[in-house]
Amino acid sequence: MSEHINPWGNDLYGDYSQLFSEFGLQHVDSKLASRLPMTNRLWKRGIIFAHRDFDKFLEAFEKGKPVAVMSGIKPSGDFHLGSKLTAEQIIFAQKAFQSKLYYCIADLEAFADNGQDFEASHEYAVQNVADLLALGMDEKNAFIYKQSENKTVSNLGFIAARKTTLATLDALYGHQNLGLYTAALVQCGDILQPQLKEFDGPKNVLVPVGVDQDPHIRLCRDVAQKIDPKFVLPSATYQRLFRSLDGTTKMSKRDPMNVISLNDDPELVKKKVMRALTGGRATAEEQKRLGGEIEKCVVHELMFFHFEDDDEALKKFQHRCTSGGISCGDCKKDVAGKIEAYLKDFQARKKKLLPKARKIIEK
Amino acid sequence: MSEHINPWGNDLYGDYSQLFSEFGLQHVDSKLASRLPMTNRLWKRGIIFAHRDFDKFLEAFEKGKPVAVMSGIKPSGDFHLGSKLTAEQIIFAQKAFQSKLYYCIADLEAFADNGQDFEASHEYAVQNVADLLALGMDEKNAFIYKQSENKTVSNLGFIAARKTTLATLDALYGHQNLGLYTAALVQCGDILQPQLKEFDGPKNVLVPVGVDQDPHIRLCRDVAQKIDPKFVLPSATYQRLFRSLDGTTKMSKRDPMNVISLNDDPELVKKKVMRALTGGRATAEEQKRLGGEIEKCVVHELMFFHFEDDDEALKKFQHRCTSGGISCGDCKKDVAGKIEAYLKDFQARKKKLLPKARKIIEK
Repeated sequence: MSEHINPWGNDLYGDYSQLFSEFGLQHVDSKLASRLPMTNRLWKRGIIFAHRDFDKFLEAFEKGKPVAVMSGIKPSGDFHLGSKLTAEQIIFAQKAFQSKLYYCIADLEAFADNGQDFEASHEYAVQNVADLLALGMDEKNAFIYKQSENKTVSNLGFIAARKTTLATLDALYGHQNLGLYTAALVQCGDILQPQLKEFDGPKNVLVPVGVDQDPHIRLCRDVAQKIDPKFVLPSATYQRLFRSLDGTTKMSKRDPMNVISLNDDPELVKKKVMRALTGGRATAEEQKRLGGEIEKCVVHELMFFHFEDDDEALKKFQHRCTSGGISCGDCKKDVAGKIEAYLKDFQARKKKLLPKARKIIEK
Repeated sequence: MSEHINPWGNDLYGDYSQLFSEFGLQHVDSKLASRLPMTNRLWKRGIIFAHRDFDKFLEAFEKGKPVAVMSGIKPSGDFHLGSKLTAEQIIFAQKAFQSKLYYCIADLEAFADNGQDFEASHEYAVQNVADLLALGMDEKNAFIYKQSENKTVSNLGFIAARKTTLATLDALYGHQNLGLYTAALVQCGDILQPQLKEFDGPKNVLVPVGVDQDPHIRLCRDVAQKIDPKFVLPSATYQRLFRSLDGTTKMSKRDPMNVISLNDDPELVKKKVMRALTGGRATAEEQKRLGGEIEKCVVHELMFFHFEDDDEALKKFQHRCTSGGISCGDCKKDVAGKIEAYLKDFQARKKKLLPKARKIIEK
């Protein structure tokens, strides 16, 4: 494993155990998860597996103190199954804690990381916000903004720059370019903004993200109280990274045949699923005798992470594989059909929400 | 001489000749100065002594192409005789080229360099703009803004971050902290802003500044066409740095008894002048016989740079010194009286302009 987590890369950080020992992440255990006021697939299945100070956030929530949820996604493409997970984690937190959601459209980061200009980001932002609405975000309890239009967060980022050092950034991110460092500092601004006076002052803020974003959380926790001693250190929960369909990296739009986008033509998705990595055996005979190696199988992960909410149905699906009851080809057809149905329904709902999304962005 | 010019330091860069050979500054000669549509003390006396591409700016102006003047000063204190020189250089350019002036209140830099928060900067900004008005700035032909309130320049700074490297910043500034690097990038935004579409697009922009600000100009010229190939490389003119009254550093508010502020009580100024460095001889007899060493004398510089506009009168003043016609004590009394009169008049004018300045800042 590398010395740093790279929030801009495609690494899977397959052996998560080292994240706990080397970077000080805390485990999500059943005791912690049981304190949630409601639950969902991500929490029940350990997809959200690590945190920083989530216990403190829960305590504040339990005591009726003001809390907030803050997160954001780069508008550098359509949401895919990786961003969908983050979005679901965010929306769940908004609901569970009946909390105001601060959602950052990270178009400055999209420029720093992808060289994508703000106009291009604008169009993706409309798509992404429609995705969020279709996934259940309550826009009435949300503050949605673009980094490129929010002077407060860039000023906070500027202030953060004076409170950290290049050596710290180097240690957190490995040696990166100045554009990415600057993007990281603006993200400190994003995370701290809900604690400003104009947003009713210091409070516990939960940042639900993919585990590869942890360096941003650490940077922000490092500078927060240097900027204002009254700031509460932000909390974070982390989800496992969803793999690309060939299982080699985290899912990323950079590799189109190995990503499932929420905007994909359902017919194309079927083709992609049929090419996905499985845990299938060398021969049909072995498959029947030994069952599939389900822990290797991305097709199983599609169901586990995304497309089978029913735990009993999931168990049956898993058993059918490990008992040798189905070939990978037939299983893929089933799963592809399930995804196709999901996407058709999702895309129909989203289409109706696009005008509302545009209104939110262009308000 | 150091390997770098430090725009945040107090160095005098006494031997300016190395600036030309090492950093590629161009000389202001009489032929260039003669192309100005009007002249003043700073230009006639070689106080403005160096430039980058000022000939190209003049050419554009002579051909009737659109041009602009851009500069700014940190609002980290009252204007003193150093900032007054910069202000006079800026205001002269606005007049001479009948040009729109983009004036940046560099409060982000004041935070990065001095740790001064935006509220404190706000009050100094009101003072500074009143100073500019009292010195003759035409506010009707000016775009005056704070860095902390101008999203356009911070976004441009963000874009600049991706177009340069830490190695470049290191080479330009020596190793500085991340706050100052970020401030430098925002200043690229300040300098390039007049060339944006919303300000009628690419044009020749003149940046009149003290010579210690050259690294900012070089950084901006380095990134400008990487950001937009249509941008014209900014031009700059440079004034000599005014010395502290004891002659040891550039004038800086960090050393209160060696600075003359435009807000100083004229009585106090008299005391400061009486302590200033002169080129006086060891004894009265020597002074009469050899005359003063005028090239060492800060009191002479007060007249040369600031308080004697009349060239004939200046010559007489100089002759009286070098011919041994006056003691340093008597000379200082004369000069102190002249400054006292200037400040009384200036402060009375400024007082009337303060409400207008506040209106400009708080618009």
